[in-house]
Amino acid sequence: MKTAVFEEPGKVRIYELDKPVVKNPTDAVLRIVRACVCGSDLWWYRGISNRDHNTPVGHEAIGVVESVGSEVTSVKPGDFVIAPFSHGCGHCAACLAGFDGDCTNRTDTEVVGYQSEYLRFKNAQWALVKIPGQPSDYTDEQLNDLLTLADVMATGYHAAHMAEVKPNDTVVVMGDGAVGLCGVIAARLHGATRIIAMSRHEDRQKLAREFGATDIVAERGDEAVAKVMDLTNGAGVDAVLECVGTEQSVDTAVKVGRPGAVVGRVGVPQKSDMNTNQLFWHNIGLRGGIAAVTTYDREVLLDAVLKGDIHPGKVFTKRFSLDDIQSAYEAMDHREAIKSLVIVSE
Amino acid sequence: MKTAVFEEPGKVRIYELDKPVVKNPTDAVLRIVRACVCGSDLWWYRGISNRDHNTPVGHEAIGVVESVGSEVTSVKPGDFVIAPFSHGCGHCAACLAGFDGDCTNRTDTEVVGYQSEYLRFKNAQWALVKIPGQPSDYTDEQLNDLLTLADVMATGYHAAHMAEVKPNDTVVVMGDGAVGLCGVIAARLHGATRIIAMSRHEDRQKLAREFGATDIVAERGDEAVAKVMDLTNGAGVDAVLECVGTEQSVDTAVKVGRPGAVVGRVGVPQKSDMNTNQLFWHNIGLRGGIAAVTTYDREVLLDAVLKGDIHPGKVFTKRFSLDDIQSAYEAMDHREAIKSLVIVSE
Repeated sequence: MKTAVFEEPGKVRIYELDKPVVKNPTDAVLRIVRACVCGSDLWWYRGISNRDHNTPVGHEAIGVVESVGSEVTSVKPGDFVIAPFSHGCGHCAACLAGFDGDCTNRTDTEVVGYQSEYLRFKNAQWALVKIPGQPSDYTDEQLNDLLTLADVMATGYHAAHMAEVKPNDTVVVMGDGAVGLCGVIAARLHGATRIIAMSRHEDRQKLAREFGATDIVAERGDEAVAKVMDLTNGAGVDAVLECVGTEQSVDTAVKVGRPGAVVGRVGVPQKSDMNTNQLFWHNIGLRGGIAAVTTYDREVLLDAVLKGDIHPGKVFTKRFSLDDIQSAYEAMDHREAIKSLVIVSE
Repeated sequence: MKTAVFEEPGKVRIYELDKPVVKNPTDAVLRIVRACVCGSDLWWYRGISNRDHNTPVGHEAIGVVESVGSEVTSVKPGDFVIAPFSHGCGHCAACLAGFDGDCTNRTDTEVVGYQSEYLRFKNAQWALVKIPGQPSDYTDEQLNDLLTLADVMATGYHAAHMAEVKPNDTVVVMGDGAVGLCGVIAARLHGATRIIAMSRHEDRQKLAREFGATDIVAERGDEAVAKVMDLTNGAGVDAVLECVGTEQSVDTAVKVGRPGAVVGRVGVPQKSDMNTNQLFWHNIGLRGGIAAVTTYDREVLLDAVLKGDIHPGKVFTKRFSLDDIQSAYEAMDHREAIKSLVIVSE
């Protein structure tokens, strides 16, 4: 089968590997229908973070179950499923508390190889999310919406959930990448009535507005803080979604909230140390981390997609075949695509 | 009138000053009945933090209204009141959001002079909390319970509220000072069924158990973390109340929560910089700061004290007259008292 493999920074190639088989009783093997490239993949693609060379890549996909282990009864061969990157077991303290992104029964090395014709998926019994019907029952747009439920839409949702967005809130969303744009959708799903998107790219501003943003702030740093304060009559906002992770973004996020606001962050932190006095003296909360994909899909997101309430698939602005995986990475690296879709099979 | 004045580290003396009068239409002048010494007062008493010499001190009291400004209609002369340190205006974004400890219409310089026969209290219209009846209607124990509603009980409550303690939660309370002990009460009020108090002093362990603690951990640092993990079958706790503020305490607080747990902190941070990666990779939240005293008193605490559901006044383990204010500070400085009560008038 064909699988995308990271050779070295800047190079992702298709390798011919053996098709995976069920190894553990909790495994399922999936035939991948669609996959995609994540903004976090650019970290190792660009050589900013370390990753072992010659390893399979990708952690977002939808597909059809090929075979299951003896303990997997929740899905059967032929079922159409979302393959969340989060791989929760469903019964550890983290999963039970609704934080399956921090499942204590999985290891990060398991979350690879989704950009491939087939995938061995662990913790299949609980983590896989069944989609009604078959891929052929859905439009191209719907398939894209469903694909976002493997990571990016759930990650945007985590930002809003952790920021504790409530009905009628005024919210700032930091970041106009695919996660930030999904954060706008999530803020609206939580009932926010005023959504201020921080964006300086016209195409992303346009999509942010389509997703529910009511105001756009193109400034950064202290100028962005001043602009948000202007927009809120000096009060600051009720909640902040931090979907970037850079020091400047986190710093701005902390400064635009009113006392008691919570910053929900999903941007992987670029810097570990941070001055938290600003948080304490303004009662600003800091929550967030890895999204609980299966939990959110089951509780809210799959239903919202199936009903057509949300259209997160619009973040895919370029599409590629699996054979052309290198171009899919390049399009995101060069900011030519907000997010690259990878068509694997029909 | 007699007022306690900070002369220099280690020295608090009684001065004879002019009785205050109403200056602003939002002022009230109070005759103080009882006041007390706060753990945070020890910072300047010990010379660890700076404070201007020869300034009036104290920020917790109950008293009777003597006179009010022209805009104060919520209380009248003769009314018995709690004088919260938080001084909220009631109409800024912070107060409206339930965070009157961060009121944007007050300055810290206003929160002084409660250890005194009389006090000019600003933002009296909204911030003062009226107590039914007169001081003479209450027992000695009840007066002490009411006095804690000016700060310490509300601060413990803030820790639990920010940690988002829910019914049936397992909770850790860091700190066995008066705030931590009130945190135990607050965790119980929020419905926690298992409350692990970190304490190494027998008298405080006893009071913690009386307030609702089900387990005591005397260890510190990594040993304390291991003990909590043992007690929770390796899962970690649902919520953490951080009522100390030292680097070690915050570090332990962050490590004992399960993924998704929130650390509610009210201990004034000793160190500003903190590695927040641990928070991100385990989805541990960090919230907290200055308590919203008036909000909590009105919503929950005054009622709980009047009904006799809680007895936070037990944190006062020594009592002093205002004339003997220096001894009140010494007793806390030498850890001879958990909290020093100051009787001003009957």
